[in-house]
Amino acid sequence: MTLPAQFAKRIGRMKASEIRELLKLLDQPGMLSFAGGIPDPALFPAEAFAEAFQSALTPEHQAQALQYSISEGYLPLRQWIAAHMAEMGVTCAPENVLITSGSQQALDYLGKLFLNPGDTALVGWPTYLGALAAFNAYEPRYDCLRPGDNQPPEAYAAAAEVAGGRVKFAYMSPDFANPTGVTMTRAERVAALQMAEALGAAVIEDGAYQALRFDGESVPPMLALEQEQKGGDLDACRTIYCGTFSKTLSPGLRVGWVVAATPVIQQLVLMKQAADLHSATINQIATHQVAARLFDDHVASLRAVYMRRRDAMLAALEAHMPEGVTWARPEGGMFIWLTLPEGISSATLLERALAQEQLAFVPGQAFYADGSGANTLRLSFSNSNETVIAEGMARLGRVLNSAL
Amino acid sequence: MTLPAQFAKRIGRMKASEIRELLKLLDQPGMLSFAGGIPDPALFPAEAFAEAFQSALTPEHQAQALQYSISEGYLPLRQWIAAHMAEMGVTCAPENVLITSGSQQALDYLGKLFLNPGDTALVGWPTYLGALAAFNAYEPRYDCLRPGDNQPPEAYAAAAEVAGGRVKFAYMSPDFANPTGVTMTRAERVAALQMAEALGAAVIEDGAYQALRFDGESVPPMLALEQEQKGGDLDACRTIYCGTFSKTLSPGLRVGWVVAATPVIQQLVLMKQAADLHSATINQIATHQVAARLFDDHVASLRAVYMRRRDAMLAALEAHMPEGVTWARPEGGMFIWLTLPEGISSATLLERALAQEQLAFVPGQAFYADGSGANTLRLSFSNSNETVIAEGMARLGRVLNSAL
Repeated sequence: MTLPAQFAKRIGRMKASEIRELLKLLDQPGMLSFAGGIPDPALFPAEAFAEAFQSALTPEHQAQALQYSISEGYLPLRQWIAAHMAEMGVTCAPENVLITSGSQQALDYLGKLFLNPGDTALVGWPTYLGALAAFNAYEPRYDCLRPGDNQPPEAYAAAAEVAGGRVKFAYMSPDFANPTGVTMTRAERVAALQMAEALGAAVIEDGAYQALRFDGESVPPMLALEQEQKGGDLDACRTIYCGTFSKTLSPGLRVGWVVAATPVIQQLVLMKQAADLHSATINQIATHQVAARLFDDHVASLRAVYMRRRDAMLAALEAHMPEGVTWARPEGGMFIWLTLPEGISSATLLERALAQEQLAFVPGQAFYADGSGANTLRLSFSNSNETVIAEGMARLGRVLNSAL
Repeated sequence: MTLPAQFAKRIGRMKASEIRELLKLLDQPGMLSFAGGIPDPALFPAEAFAEAFQSALTPEHQAQALQYSISEGYLPLRQWIAAHMAEMGVTCAPENVLITSGSQQALDYLGKLFLNPGDTALVGWPTYLGALAAFNAYEPRYDCLRPGDNQPPEAYAAAAEVAGGRVKFAYMSPDFANPTGVTMTRAERVAALQMAEALGAAVIEDGAYQALRFDGESVPPMLALEQEQKGGDLDACRTIYCGTFSKTLSPGLRVGWVVAATPVIQQLVLMKQAADLHSATINQIATHQVAARLFDDHVASLRAVYMRRRDAMLAALEAHMPEGVTWARPEGGMFIWLTLPEGISSATLLERALAQEQLAFVPGQAFYADGSGANTLRLSFSNSNETVIAEGMARLGRVLNSAL
């Protein structure tokens, strides 16, 4: 074990940066890691990208591909995204689309756009760690918005005011969320939209995993539901949709997007211009070419592979988890979320798992803005084949049995 | 003319975003534009990039090239940069290097790291417009640091305190600065370092054009001078060097870097992790490969071409400028800075130049944080051949003669 024991001890309240340090250390022979929420690189459409980069760098195209370009992003890609959004029920023009360097950059820019120190951001408890990391730079206060909560908007508004700011947005990832894998129902989406409306707050919809639905009935994005409510007027919508090619085509190219009302996009374009001019030109051209050529087929094949892995993990959990451990069955995405019996710390469990079983996962506490969730953990099934998953869950069962 | 006249009228105080809108509009047949500070795309090492992207996407490498990577940046590229910095007199390790999405992103991050609203940033009068745009997001006050100014540090500090903050950094581009083309002497660099030391402020050294020296004797980067002063201890240095491949290899790939003391880099790495995870993996790999293969030879050929263009512009200015117009001879870079007689507005002149001569440049006022400089303008010689430059300066002479 090259992983220092004191490292594992700190995991309970570790920051996003520390988690990423952990993930780097896990890349060791023999280690079975279900920690990283990353796509399986064997599934990247690498040949298509090789052709796309090659065609972008032919003499007739290279001057464009290697040159500065506009902050809004490459127009054909924005047109493709507008058509893609239309398939999900969102009607938008290329002027409603900004290309960002991954959806992580969109979260940073939206934090910068909305949050003054002391303002309130509504997030899930737990929620995506990277969203908390992005927003933290702007010093917000967090409050918890859980589907099904019956707290009235006035209560959120009053608490925000006491803290010296306003509720600026609700951040949610309605499909197979990182880390829980949970999907919000249509009714929950509508209720969250009503809440935001009552609060005069924006909704940041993180659609990172949306394309990876394996089964069940797909629910329209919150932006589609709101646009329908508002007679099709996108500019009247408070929902800001963040998408990415990181989970479907390639994360290493850093190409994501935002779809929102025109005034929001205009603000974000100015912000991007000042912050990094534009996302890499050639990556946008290559992504457009690959998406136009094979997006649907490629995503269908990803879904099939990842679904088998989810099923393998669910079956292995069923076989190996001791009584008292519970989990939800995700309809897509990359994650299964485990809840251990009260009093069992997943951070301590990780320490034991690393030492005894060469097994890694992410303790759940890091995903809670309030530091709760000590008895939860996240397993990723996207980057391990069925055999590895079966072996990994057997190891997890042994560690848990020895801990209970 | 499809350029609306009212557009030109607003140029005097236009923002960075508006300037970029202008640059977009200038891409018209017949228009001679010396406005954009962009490299000539005919000079991009496109074949080398095509080979580099191809080799990054072979089956054995594609998993790395298309996958998430660490926020610090691709290690071999950081190693190459460390060696490159050593050639300029800066001794650093890869741990002192952060890869950014162009040096524009470094300016944004440094603004975020240092500036609270009301803090003071010392900048040139004029200075790079994009630096002002990046810093503006963090609501600083600007004060003017001009080489040769005799204002004592106490005066800067007192003015900053009155404004409710501290002097956090001095931003300077010591070699062939955008927009003036002026190079700071060694004595001026040392004096600026002393000033920063006395103020307890950082120095942000923008080395964007540094590699493009055509003639004259090269002066070491401020970071090299400071490191020498401090007995080689980089961690004791307050200078933060921002570099980029945008002016040498390709701007469209968005690959730049920061070199600084370890604690500064560590802060910036955390910031980048939260803001966009990392710069595009494949672009870093391709940039490394191309830089390792041909950087010096390629830059030598760029210098030869751009020097001829500078010389053509200087000769044409000599031939066509009416009395009272002055300019400096830059020793490198992409720009020549003109000062018109007092009372002549370059914004009004641009309006006339666009309408009468299909000629474009950037009025100088936008580069002044205090809104002065109405009688200055920036000409870029990098993206026009000698014939076009001669014709363009003849047109400029005609417009000026009709305006005087």
